[in-house]
Amino acid sequence: MVLERLQQMASHLTGQLAPHHPFDPLSADEIAAAVAIVRKEYEDLFFNAVSLWEPRKMDMMRWLASPETQARPHRVADVVAIGRGSKVYDGLVDLDEGKLVKWELTDGVQPLITMEDLQVVESVVRKDPKVIEQCGLVGIPPEDMHKVYCDPWTIGYDERFGSKIRLQQALMYYRPHPDDCQYTYPLDFCPIFNADTQEIIHIDVPKVRRQVNTAPPINYNAEAVAKEMGFRKDIKPINISQPDGVSFTIEGRTLKWQNWNVHVGFNYREGIVLSNISFNDRGTVRPIFWRMSLAEMVVPYGNPEHPHQRKHAFDLGEYGGGYMTNSLALGCDCKGAIHYMDADFVNRAGEPQTIKNAICIHEEDNGILFKHTDFRDESCTVTRARKLIVSHVFTAANYEYCVYWIFHQDGTIQLEIKLTGILNTYALNPGESAAPWGTEVYPGVNAHNHQHLFCLRIDPNIDGPANTIFQVDACRGEGEPGSTDNFYGNAFYAKKTKLDTMGTAMSDYDGDTSRTWEMANTNKMNPYSKKPVCYKLVSREVPPLLPKEGSLVWKRAGFARHAVHVTKYSDEQIHPAGRHVPQTSGEPSEGIPAWIAADPEGSLDNTDVVLWHTFGLTHFPSPEDYPVMPAEPMTVLLRPRNFFTQNPALDVPPSYSSTPSQVAAGKTGIRGLVDNISRLAFGGKGEKG
Amino acid sequence: MVLERLQQMASHLTGQLAPHHPFDPLSADEIAAAVAIVRKEYEDLFFNAVSLWEPRKMDMMRWLASPETQARPHRVADVVAIGRGSKVYDGLVDLDEGKLVKWELTDGVQPLITMEDLQVVESVVRKDPKVIEQCGLVGIPPEDMHKVYCDPWTIGYDERFGSKIRLQQALMYYRPHPDDCQYTYPLDFCPIFNADTQEIIHIDVPKVRRQVNTAPPINYNAEAVAKEMGFRKDIKPINISQPDGVSFTIEGRTLKWQNWNVHVGFNYREGIVLSNISFNDRGTVRPIFWRMSLAEMVVPYGNPEHPHQRKHAFDLGEYGGGYMTNSLALGCDCKGAIHYMDADFVNRAGEPQTIKNAICIHEEDNGILFKHTDFRDESCTVTRARKLIVSHVFTAANYEYCVYWIFHQDGTIQLEIKLTGILNTYALNPGESAAPWGTEVYPGVNAHNHQHLFCLRIDPNIDGPANTIFQVDACRGEGEPGSTDNFYGNAFYAKKTKLDTMGTAMSDYDGDTSRTWEMANTNKMNPYSKKPVCYKLVSREVPPLLPKEGSLVWKRAGFARHAVHVTKYSDEQIHPAGRHVPQTSGEPSEGIPAWIAADPEGSLDNTDVVLWHTFGLTHFPSPEDYPVMPAEPMTVLLRPRNFFTQNPALDVPPSYSSTPSQVAAGKTGIRGLVDNISRLAFGGKGEKG
Ligand SMILES: [Co+2]
Ligand SMILES: [Co+2]
Repeated sequence: MVLERLQQMASHLTGQLAPHHPFDPLSADEIAAAVAIVRKEYEDLFFNAVSLWEPRKMDMMRWLASPETQARPHRVADVVAIGRGSKVYDGLVDLDEGKLVKWELTDGVQPLITMEDLQVVESVVRKDPKVIEQCGLVGIPPEDMHKVYCDPWTIGYDERFGSKIRLQQALMYYRPHPDDCQYTYPLDFCPIFNADTQEIIHIDVPKVRRQVNTAPPINYNAEAVAKEMGFRKDIKPINISQPDGVSFTIEGRTLKWQNWNVHVGFNYREGIVLSNISFNDRGTVRPIFWRMSLAEMVVPYGNPEHPHQRKHAFDLGEYGGGYMTNSLALGCDCKGAIHYMDADFVNRAGEPQTIKNAICIHEEDNGILFKHTDFRDESCTVTRARKLIVSHVFTAANYEYCVYWIFHQDGTIQLEIKLTGILNTYALNPGESAAPWGTEVYPGVNAHNHQHLFCLRIDPNIDGPANTIFQVDACRGEGEPGSTDNFYGNAFYAKKTKLDTMGTAMSDYDGDTSRTWEMANTNKMNPYSKKPVCYKLVSREVPPLLPKEGSLVWKRAGFARHAVHVTKYSDEQIHPAGRHVPQTSGEPSEGIPAWIAADPEGSLDNTDVVLWHTFGLTHFPSPEDYPVMPAEPMTVLLRPRNFFTQNPALDVPPSYSSTPSQVAAGKTGIRGLVDNISRLAFGGKGEKG
Repeated sequence: MVLERLQQMASHLTGQLAPHHPFDPLSADEIAAAVAIVRKEYEDLFFNAVSLWEPRKMDMMRWLASPETQARPHRVADVVAIGRGSKVYDGLVDLDEGKLVKWELTDGVQPLITMEDLQVVESVVRKDPKVIEQCGLVGIPPEDMHKVYCDPWTIGYDERFGSKIRLQQALMYYRPHPDDCQYTYPLDFCPIFNADTQEIIHIDVPKVRRQVNTAPPINYNAEAVAKEMGFRKDIKPINISQPDGVSFTIEGRTLKWQNWNVHVGFNYREGIVLSNISFNDRGTVRPIFWRMSLAEMVVPYGNPEHPHQRKHAFDLGEYGGGYMTNSLALGCDCKGAIHYMDADFVNRAGEPQTIKNAICIHEEDNGILFKHTDFRDESCTVTRARKLIVSHVFTAANYEYCVYWIFHQDGTIQLEIKLTGILNTYALNPGESAAPWGTEVYPGVNAHNHQHLFCLRIDPNIDGPANTIFQVDACRGEGEPGSTDNFYGNAFYAKKTKLDTMGTAMSDYDGDTSRTWEMANTNKMNPYSKKPVCYKLVSREVPPLLPKEGSLVWKRAGFARHAVHVTKYSDEQIHPAGRHVPQTSGEPSEGIPAWIAADPEGSLDNTDVVLWHTFGLTHFPSPEDYPVMPAEPMTVLLRPRNFFTQNPALDVPPSYSSTPSQVAAGKTGIRGLVDNISRLAFGGKGEKG
């Protein structure tokens, strides 16, 4: 009876008029159905994640090629649940069939920490006698425990406690007033919280003690700024509007804009997932990327003193970029004409939860797309660019990451990430130096050196799945100046090195050769250049992982050892640091190093491959970053090279275009899309283009 | 009599109600006055440049400190003129005194090639019998000589002809129709033009001959695109307006915006010159940069075959970024509320010429400036950023360079350069391979590998002129994992190396250490961090000069040998490849190498220094770049570090801000500057921030 009802419920969901695209995230109803199916067989569980188990690539490709004749991939929920005693279950629920198709107890792993898991810790900490005692030692009396706060982090890995008990470390702070920025008042000790028993099992206390900071608050909220210094009054509004509407269309979650076609997915872990990205090349729809996402991150801190080594958050694998996503607001996070998408997740109790406006989709003007003036007669063509931005913002405790996936008219895809939010801080005694591992950004506030390293997972589909990756270096030609081959010494060329096998396809960044990487289809040559069609990865913010070889972070974050790894495609390989990241020891390393070790000879030549790119920045804090950091942007570009036979944006209407004949005849050329809104700042007659 | 009249004229010019700021470019009247003063003593001259001779720094600093009591620096014109026989004269005209104060015949140099110099060559080439003969050999009959075009370049340096005769090389093209893009039809030979005698003195003819291309035209002008494929119709307008006006003010050429204060100059050579840049830090005006400009460029091509080694244009020193500047158009080059500035130059005949709308000044919204959400209660502050852009665009024969000097509210100055325009091309026979030195971007069109290297001149004034430059590298701590000092192997820090003396202050980019450079005032410590106040140069597009050590380009473009050079300030040292660049042999190297060689032991510690930064990119062309290149951007950042005691944009009004107390009380926080224009793309109720 119950089974039948569930099957009906599931088939109702998938059989509705506009059925879900197989890449669509699970809807709230689907999440509820999956939970109900699990609950039918297993009770007394907390839910950690109920998320789309993506269709297998072969099935999906088959279906996409012929949706009328091929079986539509089933909707399947990927379930992670936690039972008493920190028992972790990994399951799959086939929603089309309405049944549990996999249910496994997974030993010795810890699934990520959800926002709910985080919320619990602060209240436990405040009541714990040993924490109250430590607060007393740094100058906070018991009656002020309501002013004590903590950012609960996963413990990362601590060899004293291992992986079997689900643990969090509580980074401790104090707020003189509830509206004060707590990062000005870090406490020097660190309680360890057992998530299963909900108690503090240990406190790490430093040898040198530090009293709670006595510096006055420094706050960035509007109320405080208004009081402290007032707001500047000299910023006039800039209005951005699209009176005729936007230039993109959305069907379900499939976005079409300026020849681009992309499915916009979202999950608790990676946040935005872009799938099935293609470009309509003058009538031919050409596949470019099968799937692209930010798949992992690690933020190692550079202070070697215990227990700061534990500060190396895997924000996606340990907390979830989707779970931490902000609900966005019109005119604040995004300006202009905006389309939002919501995100549905499960909560601990198994109920669906919605983050409204989790994803923002909008267009922006992007300055000059191309321009040329003939110096002979000033005949000129100038065309303005437009870009489409698919973005979300997530808050990882103190930090904010703003993730912008940007599509350009010239075939370029750009991933821009802005870092903002607040520095992670630690206590500093008066007269104590923060150097060399940190900076005193405000009196008594030590912000440690750290890196933000992101792992971009790119599943290329450059005119089909059989692709090959090349490392490209700008190299000087053979022969010294004066030699026959290079008489004037000016020869240089692009040296291409094929990344052949799993075991050798590890490539570091080389600024000295302006190194890039090409994702090529060697089966298809550009008819003009006779070079393989490809997309080039251009990335210039590529610091090496600074924690040393053999170090804890190096072991846990195997993906970050090289700027580029390449692996053979596998449906199972999505998470570069492993499926369950908290409390992994790195012995052996999970994710990419394990996959490579399993098949080091595996050929990467002309086959379905995945490129993993780790990039980011090294952050040495300074007072300018406090109390809230001005956004710092970083960019990665994916650019078509030898993919098109000409500039693919040639048919974008120009703002102005005149030919030599028109100039000679005294005509003024075409003023197709000239903007009639722009004005001179201080009046007078503007010469319109 | 004449002298008196000129003195009156000059003093009238400088004595008018709003006198010129000493950094203002010469006005048309001042140019006319300077020419008249020169002409009084010397006739039969062509004018190459009449430009502001900038006040000596000591005089200017003295005057700025006390304009009421100190002598105002005189207006002085820097004159370059050419007499018969390629004789070059360098002169100075004191306009306040109305007299010529310097006039020198300078031997063995060639001043830059002006637009007028360029224009002459094409008509000479078309009539030259030897050129007509060569055209015949590649398939162009004599009656089609009007379809033959050339881009006249400086000769660079050719050892066969030396420096004494003023020469140009004519890169030859053909246009089937006047409106066809000539770069599709490059010719294989290269005439050499004597500018003094106005005749062709030599033709470089390759061993392998190539007939003129027979491929059909590929054009980007609107008329051709409309005919060939039509324009896409799915781009809806984006309107940008500032109903209350702009947020900046201009007095003369002094620009004030968001605490910034900067004088906007312009000259024929560097284009935009920014001087006397300061920031009002909560009431204290703090100097940051004395002067900043793009001072030189070199674009070496990588094909070693003669005579392609001569393709290595110094676009600023050989042609002038100011002279080549475009007249900009509202709504085309720039959108929104725009302020333009014109540029005045001299022509060959000594008359003032004006480029209307040479400089564009406007604001843009810049997304999120900072944001933080407290995960406990979703109290949140989000503030949007604004940027101010001072820009110009110049056309260097085939290429366009769009130069954007961008001021940010957080104290950052960004130099963004967009490359667009058309590839320089060479002929290719059917079946001939363009590899490895070039790419066939269209049938029969070979685009050679090349670099675009820019030299940014920064004269720092970080809280005063006594500054020190440090190279900063992100380095791993001592001690292997397991050692006492670095037990977990995670230690890292910023290693600072002082650039001590002229002879040793040469620093290459190092991607492996994310190298940056700091311009510091070691006399002034940040009160919180106890580190010297500084601005950091962050630049990630820093390829090395690919022409080899000892090569022609290496010798001529000494500035490009290292990412950073530092020199002691000298009023005379503005041009990193020398004052007169065309036909320099590089033996000895002029500009930076010469200045360093003259004082290798010169201390750079805590003194007035200049930092020269060479950055850019290596361009391996592809068909996507043809027939017109989608703009490729590059960015250099100058960021305050330990300069301010807090985020200097804290008082920018937020879009939204709520505090924990407000959230707890059910209040919605401050919605200060919420934008009421933004809308949902597809209707519905937007939740305003
Ligand atoms: Co950071
Ligand atoms: Co180029």
